[in-house]
Amino acid sequence: MGYVHHLFSCRCSRKRAFQIAKSFLPILEWLPNYRVKEWLISDVISGVSTGLVATLQGLAYALLVAVPVGYGLYSAFFPILTYFFLGTSRHISVGPFPVVSLMVGSVVLSMAPDENFLIDGSNATGTNGTGTLIDTESRDAQRVLIASTLTFLVGILQVIFGVLQIGFIVRYLADPLVGGFTTAAAFQVLVSQLKIVLNVSTKNYNGVLSIIYTLIETFEKIGTTNIADLIAGLLTIFVCMVVKEINDRFKHKIPIPIPIEVIVVNGASLATGISYAANLEKKYNAGIVKSIPRGFLPPEPPDVSLFSQMIAASFSIAIVAYAIAVSVGKVYATKYDYAIDGNQEFIAFGFSNIFSGAFSCFVATTALSRTAVQESTGGKTQVAGIISAGIVLISIVALGKLLEPLQKSVLAAVVIANLKGMFMQVFDVPRLWRQNKVDAMIWVFTCVASIILGLDLGLLAGLLFGLLTVVLRVQFPSWGGFGNIPGTDIYKKVKDYKNVIEPEGVKILKFSSPIFYANIDGLKSSLKSTVGFDAVKVYNKRLKALRKIQKLIKKGKLKATKNGIISEPGINNEAFETDEEPDDNEDLQVPTKEVEIQVDWNSELPVKVNIPKVPIHSLILDFGAVTFLDIVAVRSIKTIIREFERIDVRVYFASYQDNLISQLERSAFFDDIVRKDIFFLTVHDAVLYIRNQMTYSDNQDPIFEKVRISSSIVQRCGPTLEKWPYNFLLSFHHNSFPSNCHYSIMNKK
Amino acid sequence: MGYVHHLFSCRCSRKRAFQIAKSFLPILEWLPNYRVKEWLISDVISGVSTGLVATLQGLAYALLVAVPVGYGLYSAFFPILTYFFLGTSRHISVGPFPVVSLMVGSVVLSMAPDENFLIDGSNATGTNGTGTLIDTESRDAQRVLIASTLTFLVGILQVIFGVLQIGFIVRYLADPLVGGFTTAAAFQVLVSQLKIVLNVSTKNYNGVLSIIYTLIETFEKIGTTNIADLIAGLLTIFVCMVVKEINDRFKHKIPIPIPIEVIVVNGASLATGISYAANLEKKYNAGIVKSIPRGFLPPEPPDVSLFSQMIAASFSIAIVAYAIAVSVGKVYATKYDYAIDGNQEFIAFGFSNIFSGAFSCFVATTALSRTAVQESTGGKTQVAGIISAGIVLISIVALGKLLEPLQKSVLAAVVIANLKGMFMQVFDVPRLWRQNKVDAMIWVFTCVASIILGLDLGLLAGLLFGLLTVVLRVQFPSWGGFGNIPGTDIYKKVKDYKNVIEPEGVKILKFSSPIFYANIDGLKSSLKSTVGFDAVKVYNKRLKALRKIQKLIKKGKLKATKNGIISEPGINNEAFETDEEPDDNEDLQVPTKEVEIQVDWNSELPVKVNIPKVPIHSLILDFGAVTFLDIVAVRSIKTIIREFERIDVRVYFASYQDNLISQLERSAFFDDIVRKDIFFLTVHDAVLYIRNQMTYSDNQDPIFEKVRISSSIVQRCGPTLEKWPYNFLLSFHHNSFPSNCHYSIMNKK
Repeated sequence: MGYVHHLFSCRCSRKRAFQIAKSFLPILEWLPNYRVKEWLISDVISGVSTGLVATLQGLAYALLVAVPVGYGLYSAFFPILTYFFLGTSRHISVGPFPVVSLMVGSVVLSMAPDENFLIDGSNATGTNGTGTLIDTESRDAQRVLIASTLTFLVGILQVIFGVLQIGFIVRYLADPLVGGFTTAAAFQVLVSQLKIVLNVSTKNYNGVLSIIYTLIETFEKIGTTNIADLIAGLLTIFVCMVVKEINDRFKHKIPIPIPIEVIVVNGASLATGISYAANLEKKYNAGIVKSIPRGFLPPEPPDVSLFSQMIAASFSIAIVAYAIAVSVGKVYATKYDYAIDGNQEFIAFGFSNIFSGAFSCFVATTALSRTAVQESTGGKTQVAGIISAGIVLISIVALGKLLEPLQKSVLAAVVIANLKGMFMQVFDVPRLWRQNKVDAMIWVFTCVASIILGLDLGLLAGLLFGLLTVVLRVQFPSWGGFGNIPGTDIYKKVKDYKNVIEPEGVKILKFSSPIFYANIDGLKSSLKSTVGFDAVKVYNKRLKALRKIQKLIKKGKLKATKNGIISEPGINNEAFETDEEPDDNEDLQVPTKEVEIQVDWNSELPVKVNIPKVPIHSLILDFGAVTFLDIVAVRSIKTIIREFERIDVRVYFASYQDNLISQLERSAFFDDIVRKDIFFLTVHDAVLYIRNQMTYSDNQDPIFEKVRISSSIVQRCGPTLEKWPYNFLLSFHHNSFPSNCHYSIMNKK
Repeated sequence: MGYVHHLFSCRCSRKRAFQIAKSFLPILEWLPNYRVKEWLISDVISGVSTGLVATLQGLAYALLVAVPVGYGLYSAFFPILTYFFLGTSRHISVGPFPVVSLMVGSVVLSMAPDENFLIDGSNATGTNGTGTLIDTESRDAQRVLIASTLTFLVGILQVIFGVLQIGFIVRYLADPLVGGFTTAAAFQVLVSQLKIVLNVSTKNYNGVLSIIYTLIETFEKIGTTNIADLIAGLLTIFVCMVVKEINDRFKHKIPIPIPIEVIVVNGASLATGISYAANLEKKYNAGIVKSIPRGFLPPEPPDVSLFSQMIAASFSIAIVAYAIAVSVGKVYATKYDYAIDGNQEFIAFGFSNIFSGAFSCFVATTALSRTAVQESTGGKTQVAGIISAGIVLISIVALGKLLEPLQKSVLAAVVIANLKGMFMQVFDVPRLWRQNKVDAMIWVFTCVASIILGLDLGLLAGLLFGLLTVVLRVQFPSWGGFGNIPGTDIYKKVKDYKNVIEPEGVKILKFSSPIFYANIDGLKSSLKSTVGFDAVKVYNKRLKALRKIQKLIKKGKLKATKNGIISEPGINNEAFETDEEPDDNEDLQVPTKEVEIQVDWNSELPVKVNIPKVPIHSLILDFGAVTFLDIVAVRSIKTIIREFERIDVRVYFASYQDNLISQLERSAFFDDIVRKDIFFLTVHDAVLYIRNQMTYSDNQDPIFEKVRISSSIVQRCGPTLEKWPYNFLLSFHHNSFPSNCHYSIMNKK
């Protein structure tokens, strides 16, 4: 082991302290093991290449933030310094990323729009296309302050997230969501750069649909396009895309990808600088970079008073910036087999942003393209990163002047040329749709929402939509009646399989999802459709029929015997009646004496009440996929058991999850009647039990039942089923409370 | 059937038209069947009782809306007229409800606060407590306009919801959520009425925590309490609560509950009117009702320009109003066995609110207390409702004058006395906590959010929280290693059961939830913890060991034979090495010839690389509760299969849901290697298959494997596992691309 380890290895407690230090400063872990001989050269090569790209991207992405391009160089320099000590990824290139830069830019533009800096007099320092005078100096100063304050706040949030160990939130950024979001971001970047390429000025739009308004205004003002800028921009886009295509096609043959952007930008800069330098701005009114500060600005404290206005946006920026860095980092961690510590990354980027926020930078994360350069040119560790920072440093202190005559449209074109990959993601959608419609919908929704609502709100909307799809997928599960595959203990969906046999008198329903408030109605209706009748309706119809029968018995038209009801011969039964509500004002409430009637509900009744037939005696609910129940579900299931018991259908539960029983116990599910013996390990066990029961009770006419009518008022019942006593006492309210009728239907035992 | 039916019964198409008409106008269904003899008298009795209560509640709830109390009478009258024709509930009493009135009131107060109506001069028509002059007349006119416009908009939304058939959204209002929400609403009502009982004036607070600020200011100004109002209010509360308690205790003995509020209010009104009428206002500065408009105002169009400011609030009001009405209606529909049509109810309340919004009313729903009166005094149909509207009509045209001297504090006290039931819900929470912690959290969260954020935002927050709990419950399922109960085909969790035996060399993991982007990491870590090792790490360590072995063979220190590796005697193996990263710069990339090595990874290796032991050859994932997979999950599972195959652990799936296979097919899960034969109907089937396989291959040393090292560069691999070809070709990137090393580990067949 290396030097630092040696220092502490003498004592155990020191070793422990070193372990803790290592977890906060991962550099202590890898730098002592740095293999100078093997790695240094490739790290230097990689660092130089990456540094060139970083310089250029820094300048270009500053356009997205709407700050002077020079500040992009700072943003490509400072964050690397802290990440070097704190980061756990060895390959990512820390610095600006277009999507995040644009998100920062939208805050900057909304808080410091051009309109705030109009000047009345003629002592203006800048003009925009429409001729109105704008105090660009104070505007830019304000914008830099806003961007760096936002960066500082993002850093604080990221450190807090890291300390709270909530790196897990990245899990909620599903692949389709990220795809839709980045495509929308690419669109936003395109629109924002388009006006720079064309050099037309538009109003600053904020909020809903702002990007569309900007696009429309850009096209409305397309007449004011600056031809010099447009030509430079289109040329840059063309050259960059062609060379990138070549890089891609011949990547096997070219050792290092051609850094075309660097060449183009420096070429363009030199060309303008030498040949028609000042003319371009004066004659053609082209937008040029103009001033790149040489050297550094002293650190400035953030403007804390702005925090409250940017807190919402900084939340989403903190998370997006982190998510991009970690997802890119994980790709390379997997490739080179090392671990990325999600929470440490939050802390690393948090401190990087706090530090660089103090130096007028905007938010740092990583860029996939730059990281790819760093890795493919041989970067082994963050030493390559530190060297790339060195290259940026040289640009800051020495080369800045060279880039000053550069046209902004060239930089914007470089940004646009880099969007191809992000736009190409659109072609994922048809494949996604074929594979999984819900995921495709998440993609499209997030993309559309991010374009319409803006990136921060769009991301939130996409996130919520994603979670909602989970709820909906849980809420609308597959369900169906199950039957036995003969000769096995396997039960399969009756609709999907041939030769599946439902046990006689038994229905088996599998409802494949947890049961909770949002799908309890779904359970009820799937139950109704599986058994083929409505238990409550059947019960009410039976009650009605009983009342009719009682009336007929009283009139002497029927006789109740121990073998059932016998109609007196030659009696005209009442006409088949309509489905109107039970008619409880009739004069049968006080029978003179208790009569016992046995009714076979499945036979022809002497009274022609239209009672749905109940062809089953048992109902098995397969709870194999019911992983949790909420309180609403527990109550409803208890009600369902009672409703079916009232019409002599016993309800059983099979293949339940073990934790379900304790959950039901806590929820007071079990009582004297709903006992645990209705739970079976498997559906087949339940079926065997039922078959057994039926065999034993066969000589007792299981589907007959005893009905006793008594006149005693036992109990007032509440309005809901829950309050009814379990022994099926039903009391009916009449006009007021006095005379109640009480029917009790008991199972024959 | 009745008259209307007869008219159309001659032709079939007319019958059809009538069916359609009935579904839009449910009155056509029940009115022709009205049993005048049996029902009319009880409907009239019920209607008169309900009408008295409705009059009073109308006046009282107008205080919550912050409009002159007279408009409460309109709100208790107009909506009934439309609901009579369109509604499907026979028992609910349509009209104002405190929670909804308060929600309307908060919009009214935020859009027309007192501050907007201050008068400079001395020609003011009203004064508030602090002496500032307010133009109450124009203020009240504006407030009435806002309330009725809001009602109109709510009506439009409800009709739209009804037409779109989205009555289902009520499902998302789970019981705990409604409990928390109504308790918070009761608290808000209490605070808003408290200042009326005390007759102190406070500022209008809006937004977050406004109710708390109001409460604080009320107590700060408690010194300005009007004693006359306070005494009248306290007396009313006391009398009402005592008599309500009596009503409740002796409900068996009293035919109709004593309408104590009506008595108290009329008594108070008469007392003030006769004895010290004008004095009360002048001498004691008490707040009295003053002017109740006699007769009707002409219909007024809503102020469409206000719509945009109230659209968000009207959404939540539309849903809450509907949810209250439907849930109350359903209680009585269950009791009397008829159906409520959820979407028709949306349309009925929608048109009622549009209609009554045009007549300066505020939003109608139902009140549980008033509906209980209507039902318990014998109401059979909405004829009782129409008669109660008649009673309100009489109050409007004739009795209004009598109530004018009434103190507002008496009305406010009546509102407060009715809150008891809503506050008592707090005592549900401990029971809920015992039964289901998540549901208790939903209750508390919704309640706290509704108090802090206000009712509309609070409801939204509660709704989202409720959905989030579903996601979280799905995201963090129970999981565990399963084992066989000897002598059966039953598999149970090893941790929970004694004498459960894991088949040798087989691990069985059950992950009880759908698998999607948010819990895929959970699946991976539960997998790691069940099998006891990290498949990727094991693979990398093995690769490293292979390289060492190859080196040693090259150096002649080891011999590879067909029976394994034999160390030459007397060789010092390398020291036990540290866990640093694989060292791919060593000089073994180009072996001179192909060498076959057989390595028993579970034996002592001649090179001392610390390779975790892999004690299993098969892994079974019990997918019994995996009801869906998203695209992220499918990809990850495929990766998992490959990672395990690389270290010679075969992955099987058991007791999958039928729809899963087609889902996997669409997602391109299956290929030449991942075939459908890894899917088994039950865990036991999979175990039997594995046992069989092992028996056949026993004489072939199943845990040995052949390793072939070749120097050909077959393919550049992408950064992610997904892109690796399945036949375990692994190519390592070095500094740049040129020299790649390719290891292929094949299963012995």
